[in-house]
Amino acid sequence: MREALAEWRPVIDDAIAEILPREVDGDDLEAFFGEPTFAYDPEGIQRALADPLWDLLDRGGKRWRAVLFLVFVDALGEDPQAFHPYACIPEILHNGTIIVDDVEDGASIRRGEPALHHVHGEDIALNAGNAMYFLPLKILTHDPGDLGAETRLRAYEMLLYELNRTHLGQGMDICWHNERGVRISTEQYLEMCACKTGCLSRIVARLAAIVTDQEPAVEDALARYAELTAIAFQIGDDILDVEHSLGRAGEFGKEFGNDIREGKTTLLVLHAIETAGAERAGRLEEILETDANTDEEVADALAIIEDVGSIEHARERALEFSEQARGALEDLPVDLELEPRAQLLEFTEFVVDRDV
Amino acid sequence: MREALAEWRPVIDDAIAEILPREVDGDDLEAFFGEPTFAYDPEGIQRALADPLWDLLDRGGKRWRAVLFLVFVDALGEDPQAFHPYACIPEILHNGTIIVDDVEDGASIRRGEPALHHVHGEDIALNAGNAMYFLPLKILTHDPGDLGAETRLRAYEMLLYELNRTHLGQGMDICWHNERGVRISTEQYLEMCACKTGCLSRIVARLAAIVTDQEPAVEDALARYAELTAIAFQIGDDILDVEHSLGRAGEFGKEFGNDIREGKTTLLVLHAIETAGAERAGRLEEILETDANTDEEVADALAIIEDVGSIEHARERALEFSEQARGALEDLPVDLELEPRAQLLEFTEFVVDRDV
Repeated sequence: MREALAEWRPVIDDAIAEILPREVDGDDLEAFFGEPTFAYDPEGIQRALADPLWDLLDRGGKRWRAVLFLVFVDALGEDPQAFHPYACIPEILHNGTIIVDDVEDGASIRRGEPALHHVHGEDIALNAGNAMYFLPLKILTHDPGDLGAETRLRAYEMLLYELNRTHLGQGMDICWHNERGVRISTEQYLEMCACKTGCLSRIVARLAAIVTDQEPAVEDALARYAELTAIAFQIGDDILDVEHSLGRAGEFGKEFGNDIREGKTTLLVLHAIETAGAERAGRLEEILETDANTDEEVADALAIIEDVGSIEHARERALEFSEQARGALEDLPVDLELEPRAQLLEFTEFVVDRDV
Repeated sequence: MREALAEWRPVIDDAIAEILPREVDGDDLEAFFGEPTFAYDPEGIQRALADPLWDLLDRGGKRWRAVLFLVFVDALGEDPQAFHPYACIPEILHNGTIIVDDVEDGASIRRGEPALHHVHGEDIALNAGNAMYFLPLKILTHDPGDLGAETRLRAYEMLLYELNRTHLGQGMDICWHNERGVRISTEQYLEMCACKTGCLSRIVARLAAIVTDQEPAVEDALARYAELTAIAFQIGDDILDVEHSLGRAGEFGKEFGNDIREGKTTLLVLHAIETAGAERAGRLEEILETDANTDEEVADALAIIEDVGSIEHARERALEFSEQARGALEDLPVDLELEPRAQLLEFTEFVVDRDV
C-alpha cells in the first residue's frame, strides 16, 4: 500500500487539477460549473476556492482515500486508469471535512502549518470546505464517462446516505466533547467512529463497487471491510495518542496528552472509567471535564488509563475489528485480483500496527 | 401570497417534524438515517441536530421557499397536499445556509435572538448547518413516494448543480467583502446574486417542475422566473438598507448603514462609483474599505449614493428584473392554473415594492 501511495499521489493531484486547476479562469469555471447567467469573477473564485483547496492539498496528505479507491477498482478486475476522476470524490470530500473540522475544533495547526481558517480567514475557509462537499458529488454528473443513469443514481443515493451519517457522527463527537461527565456506552462510541470516520471509508468502497457495476452484496461486504478498518484505525489513533503521551511511541507530531486535554471520550477512557473503581474513575472524569489541564493532571489521567489495562483492551478490540475486516473480504461473492487483495489485507494490519 | 404563507407555515413545520421531530428518539433516527451499525446516541443527536434546527425554525421565518414550491406545484395543476415532504427540501437547505452564513459573517443576531453559534456553540451550529445541507437531499431517497428512478436522478443532478453554484456565489461575495477597493463589474455582481440568492430559488422552481414531471423547457422557464425574482429581491434588499439608513423607510430591524459598514459591494455602490466622479468615488471606496466606520463616514457614503441617483438606478434595474421574471412565465409552454399564476406574478412585484 505504501508503494501505491507514493506512485499514485501525483496522478490523483492531476485528476483533481482537471476539475479545479491551481489557477482557474472563466473557461475552467464554465466547463465544470456551467455557463454563468451574467459573468463569473475568476479572480474571486480563485481566492475563495482554488487557493484554499490547493493550499491544503500541497501541504501533504497521503491521498490514501483516493488510492484505496483505485486499489478496490483494481481488486474488482477493472483498470484503475479509467477511474481517476471518481477517485477524487472521497479525497476532496475528506479534505473538505478537514477544513470544516478545524474550524469546529478551533484547531491552530494543520499539516505543520497554520490551519486554513487562520491563513484564509474563517469565512473563506468554511465556504471552501463546504464547496468541497458539493464539488466532488458533481464529478459524477460532469464526467459520467461510461456511467449510466442507474449507476449515477445508485452513487448519489449512496453518497447522501453516508454524508448524512457522517454529520451524525461528528455531531455526537462534538456533543461528548462539550458535555460534563462521560455518559455514553461503548456501542455508542463505536457508532460515532462508524459514522464519523467510517462513512467516508464506506464511500471509498461503495463508490468503487458502484462505478464498476458490482452486485449489492459485493458493495455491502466492501463497505463492511472499509467501516471495520476505519474503526480499527480510529482506535489505533486513540492508542497512539496515549502511548506517545506516555513517552512510548516515536515522533507523533501531536502535543502531549492532546486527547485528555480536549476531554475526548475514547475507547480507552470508556474502559478505564468502567474498570478503575469509583474513586479513580471519578478522578479521570474530573480531569476530562476540566477545561485547561495542568501537565500533572494529564499525567494522572494517563496513569489511570495505563494501570487498568485500557491500552491492551483497546488494542485487542482494534485487532478484533481488523480481523473482522479481513473476514468481510473472505465473505465476498466475487474473487478479487490477488495483488490488490493482498494490499487490502495488509492495510487492515497497518491501521493497527502503525506508529505514526 | 401573504395568505398562502400564513396558511401553510404550520403544515410545512409538521412536514419537517416528520423528518426530524422536535424530540428525537432511536426509532426516528433509524427511520430516517438507517439502522445504526452499533447504537445511536439520541441524546447527543438531539443536542447536535434537532435542538439547533428547531431553535432556528421556531424563531420565525416565513417558510416562503416551501410555500413558493407548493404554489408552483399548484400552478402546474397538481395537488400541493401530496408534495409536502419535497417542500421541506429548499426550506431546510435555506435554514442551513443561514446558520453557516452567520458563522462566516460573524453575525451576532438572527431573528431577534443571538445567532445560533452564540447559543449552541460554533462547533454544534456549524455541524448542524452542514447536516441541513445533506438531510433534505435524502428526503428524495427516504420518501420517494411516486418518484421514479429517473425523476430522482434528475432531482439530484439539479440539486448538485445549484448547490455548487451557491458556493461560488457565497465565495465571490465573501471575497469582495474582504478586498480593498471595488474592482468588479455589474455583470459579476449580478452573477453573485444569481448564484448566492438565485440558486436556492431555482431549486424551489426546478424541484417543483421535476417532481411534477414537467418537460425541461418548463423547468428552465420556471428557473428563470425564480432567478430573476431572486435578483430583484436582492437589489430590493440593498435599496431598503440604504433607504432605511437615510431615514426614509419604515422599521427594518437592521443597524443604520449596515451594508456600508460591512463594506458590501452592492448594485448601488457600483453605480455610485461609476458615476460620482473620481473624487467622490474615491471617498466612497475609502469608507467601504475602512473596518470600523464612524456614523459621519456612513452618512457621507449614503449621501454620495443618494446624490448620484443610485437608488433610482437600482430600483429601475430591480423593476426590469421583476418584469423579465413575469416574462419568463409568459413564455411557458404549458398553461398555469390561474390563481397560483396570479400569486407568482404578484410575488415579482412584492420583492421590489416591499418595505420590510
